[in-house]
Amino acid sequence: MTYQEKLQSIRRLMKSENVSAYIIPSSDPHISEYLPDRFKCIEFASGFTGSAGTLVITEVEAGLWTDGRYFVQATEQLEGTGYELMPLKAQGVPEYVEWLSGKLLKDSSVAFDGRLVSVNLAEMIENRLRPAGVKILPDRDYLNEIWKDRPILPSNPAYLIDESVTGEGIKQKLEKLRQLLRDVHADYHLISSLDDIAWLFNIRGSDVKCNPVVLAFALISHDHATIFIDPAKVSNENKGELLNHNVMIKEYHEIDAAISTVKNGTIFIDPKRTCFRLFKLINPVINVVQGVNPTTNLKAIKNPVEIENTRKTMIKDGVALTRFFKWLDENNGQTDLYEISVAEKLLDFRAEQEGFVGESFDTIAAYSDHGALPHYKASLSSNAKLNPNGLFLLDSGGQYIGGTTDITRVVSLGNATMDEKTDYTLVLKGMIDGVTARYPKGTRGYQIDAITRKPLWDNSRNYGHGTGHGVGFFLNVHEGPQVFNSANITVEIEPGMITSIEPGIYRIGKYGIRIENLVLSVKDESNEFGEFYAFETLTLAYIDTSLIIRSLLDQKQVDWLNNYNQLVVERLGKHLDNEELKWLIKKAQPI
Amino acid sequence: MTYQEKLQSIRRLMKSENVSAYIIPSSDPHISEYLPDRFKCIEFASGFTGSAGTLVITEVEAGLWTDGRYFVQATEQLEGTGYELMPLKAQGVPEYVEWLSGKLLKDSSVAFDGRLVSVNLAEMIENRLRPAGVKILPDRDYLNEIWKDRPILPSNPAYLIDESVTGEGIKQKLEKLRQLLRDVHADYHLISSLDDIAWLFNIRGSDVKCNPVVLAFALISHDHATIFIDPAKVSNENKGELLNHNVMIKEYHEIDAAISTVKNGTIFIDPKRTCFRLFKLINPVINVVQGVNPTTNLKAIKNPVEIENTRKTMIKDGVALTRFFKWLDENNGQTDLYEISVAEKLLDFRAEQEGFVGESFDTIAAYSDHGALPHYKASLSSNAKLNPNGLFLLDSGGQYIGGTTDITRVVSLGNATMDEKTDYTLVLKGMIDGVTARYPKGTRGYQIDAITRKPLWDNSRNYGHGTGHGVGFFLNVHEGPQVFNSANITVEIEPGMITSIEPGIYRIGKYGIRIENLVLSVKDESNEFGEFYAFETLTLAYIDTSLIIRSLLDQKQVDWLNNYNQLVVERLGKHLDNEELKWLIKKAQPI
Repeated sequence: MTYQEKLQSIRRLMKSENVSAYIIPSSDPHISEYLPDRFKCIEFASGFTGSAGTLVITEVEAGLWTDGRYFVQATEQLEGTGYELMPLKAQGVPEYVEWLSGKLLKDSSVAFDGRLVSVNLAEMIENRLRPAGVKILPDRDYLNEIWKDRPILPSNPAYLIDESVTGEGIKQKLEKLRQLLRDVHADYHLISSLDDIAWLFNIRGSDVKCNPVVLAFALISHDHATIFIDPAKVSNENKGELLNHNVMIKEYHEIDAAISTVKNGTIFIDPKRTCFRLFKLINPVINVVQGVNPTTNLKAIKNPVEIENTRKTMIKDGVALTRFFKWLDENNGQTDLYEISVAEKLLDFRAEQEGFVGESFDTIAAYSDHGALPHYKASLSSNAKLNPNGLFLLDSGGQYIGGTTDITRVVSLGNATMDEKTDYTLVLKGMIDGVTARYPKGTRGYQIDAITRKPLWDNSRNYGHGTGHGVGFFLNVHEGPQVFNSANITVEIEPGMITSIEPGIYRIGKYGIRIENLVLSVKDESNEFGEFYAFETLTLAYIDTSLIIRSLLDQKQVDWLNNYNQLVVERLGKHLDNEELKWLIKKAQPI
Repeated sequence: MTYQEKLQSIRRLMKSENVSAYIIPSSDPHISEYLPDRFKCIEFASGFTGSAGTLVITEVEAGLWTDGRYFVQATEQLEGTGYELMPLKAQGVPEYVEWLSGKLLKDSSVAFDGRLVSVNLAEMIENRLRPAGVKILPDRDYLNEIWKDRPILPSNPAYLIDESVTGEGIKQKLEKLRQLLRDVHADYHLISSLDDIAWLFNIRGSDVKCNPVVLAFALISHDHATIFIDPAKVSNENKGELLNHNVMIKEYHEIDAAISTVKNGTIFIDPKRTCFRLFKLINPVINVVQGVNPTTNLKAIKNPVEIENTRKTMIKDGVALTRFFKWLDENNGQTDLYEISVAEKLLDFRAEQEGFVGESFDTIAAYSDHGALPHYKASLSSNAKLNPNGLFLLDSGGQYIGGTTDITRVVSLGNATMDEKTDYTLVLKGMIDGVTARYPKGTRGYQIDAITRKPLWDNSRNYGHGTGHGVGFFLNVHEGPQVFNSANITVEIEPGMITSIEPGIYRIGKYGIRIENLVLSVKDESNEFGEFYAFETLTLAYIDTSLIIRSLLDQKQVDWLNNYNQLVVERLGKHLDNEELKWLIKKAQPI
């Protein structure tokens, strides 16, 4: 079936029910960012493989709304599919709703699969279209009717991880959560988001690529908790351990019955992380309290054990990266290297490390002009051969039992131009200003974002993505609630949060530069002006100095860089062999 | 009548109607920041003279909610009045509503004077208290019943100003406004905010201290406009001129009848700048569209004539300041100088300038530890004598026919300490980083705020107020919509906006430092990364270099400072006599 044929089939189904528009979001019943294959609906319908987007189909039009990261890729992938690229002005804003409201006639209907739409989004669509007299049909899964070989739900094993790893047992976490629920007078709490469930029950799995989560829902009351998960995934030993904390296991699909049978009291849900379908199953007599899942905020503040484990994990990741860059250095120009093969080589080096579980996201190994696509992933057709000149951008990360990593480095493969060096140095300035920021209690991500961008703005340069995202502990590499970008998000930065700082400069058709470290928020000085926080850099991998124009850095930035590269040598040294250490020491020479 | 007696009287009136709480905001029927004497209700009731606050009176408690700027002052002024200081955590947030909701019983009522409460605030109070079963009585002016000699409304003359001053005639402004009203399908527009009315009709007056506005309402339809104003204030010539543009004059109080008699169509109001009482007069069949007054956004973008006039005004203001600081320099230690007398001297120098109308706010002439109170105003009892040592902070501004000024300088009167110099230099660094910022289209105030604060944060210092505020053109010295502070306000900075940049450091009991310039947003480079904007510094008065620790500034900051002081000499030079110029050249020596 071609994409055109699929589109025709969808339109036939729409027509049979008199539906004027059908919406297909990039989501799953847990409102995830990374999706199990069963919910890769946009890829099935249109061939577009980006991690964010929405398809909207009307009788005569069909569009993909996605953001700047994917304009080039979407243009290519949508060719001949019947879908048109509709560029989003702002990332994450459902601009198609506005578009739809201008197209639909009174008494028409819009359909979507309520499993793939958050409560927030569904209500927003409803509120926007209702005044125009448009009806919502929130329970139509037209794809399912044409998706013959649709993948089933993954059945990978789940496993509990030890308190020595997580720093906090299930009992304590449940106690904290229940206290927060009591504070808002909630008797029940439905959790749909997979990372919240993984954190709360110290459970991990591999149901979603790159995210060590398991497909599950959880329903928590003040004396019981139930995880709705394929029971075959959980060992009897783990089941026993969970039961010790009054945590029961039920079938994944039983969440429907469980939600429907709550007949009184107050239930707490996160409207951004709960699908509309489950929400509609809540008995109307039940009082619903909406807010950010309390676990999202608890999870964001890493405890001392998580922090210490993350520090150890950074050494492992740094060793793997050092070995990789040494290998690249020695093979650059000597053997045939391709984007895909070097990414595989990096994976090999990481896999040698104890506790390594897998990649935390698809490696971006981008040579030359591919670096200008911030979310580039080499395909067989794009797979470039590395030559001994130009820039190589590597954005990658690992999932380890002891933590999640995410790092970007750019290295020169030879003959760097002045433009490349200038841009590299400016990005480095921004990165250093970000990671060395001191900031008062109460500071929000947008303030750190501005400080990081300043050296780029000063030189009339900028980047079209955020400066940083929260990172989980052996969990999702994108984790809220904090984010460092220019949006007016009021989440305050708190000690214990781990966030990336990753400014960049992208020259379409030429090269891309991004330098990324993970930082931990820590307490700093307190005085008459209040409490100040700072960042501790966690990531440990040398920063290439051959691309630096020293005169563009101020002395504090030079000092930071030299100290950092020295620290990398010190921390990694004893885990490297002599040759590796010698090579790293040379690379880490002070400038 | 003592404040205690007034409080008792209010409570008697409350009791007679079974009212459990009475709210007295700092406002007037135009939701102004600066108030005509008739509406200085808080001062009348409690003696507190700060520019922001709310009194809330219950049967047994009475409190003043105000922000950090006024904690010291309020503590002193409320002594023995029966009112307790309730420190606000965040400026401008009605935290007393939360407090009240915890105190009031079901079926009790809360009263206030609906003329002094915006639509927004009234609805917020109502929405918060309704679920608790508390009723609102929005039309109680208890103060009026006990305020025997309450001032009448001011009757100062109003006058039209010429298009050669404003750059745009009434006709064009009305056309622009009407187009924006058409865009939102509004047939009528009620304007209550005095600066919006002054801007739209090119009318000025002196009904409010420091703000050249006239007490008026305006009702605009697509073919007519009416200003509701005491007709005696407007000359016949001006009335004729207004009539030429189909603008009629009616009595101030006739706005009530005019609003009530609109019987169909859609009316646009700004819920933050319209009082609840007028809003309630709108016929319920009328469709109300709410939004920021379109004139607020139009007014914020200064046109080329306003900008050129402001530049000329800055020369006048700079000449006055240069003469003042020369006079201070020569008299420091020679004659008895007091905070009040030097402020008067400054006023004399400004008054010599052509087009000067008055102060744009109460001068803050703060010697030594008084400088640590950001909103200090010398009173007869606090009026400090200046000694030839320590710091002198001067924050002042003028209203001129050709623009509004606002400038803060700190000078050393002798024997500055290292601490003073360090803090001064850090504040200067922040100010320079702010005014030299380059920023992409779309940047918001919170980003400029962060950039300005960074040098202070880097050194564990901070200030408890915003970095800057919009400034009117021969209008209010505080003008929206843009503001440079850390709040998540999404107003974008646009070319043509005039804003202050004024970081500070305050050492309670010791000294205060603040350095403030006004800047104009201008277009800068456009390239593949987008459109960039920058600031042009408008303020022209030398910055004292004797307090600078040069090694704390980087070379770019030193260059900016030297260029700026040089520019001040160049621009002011030909307006100064020989002695003055000689003195200024010495002060402006490069460091």
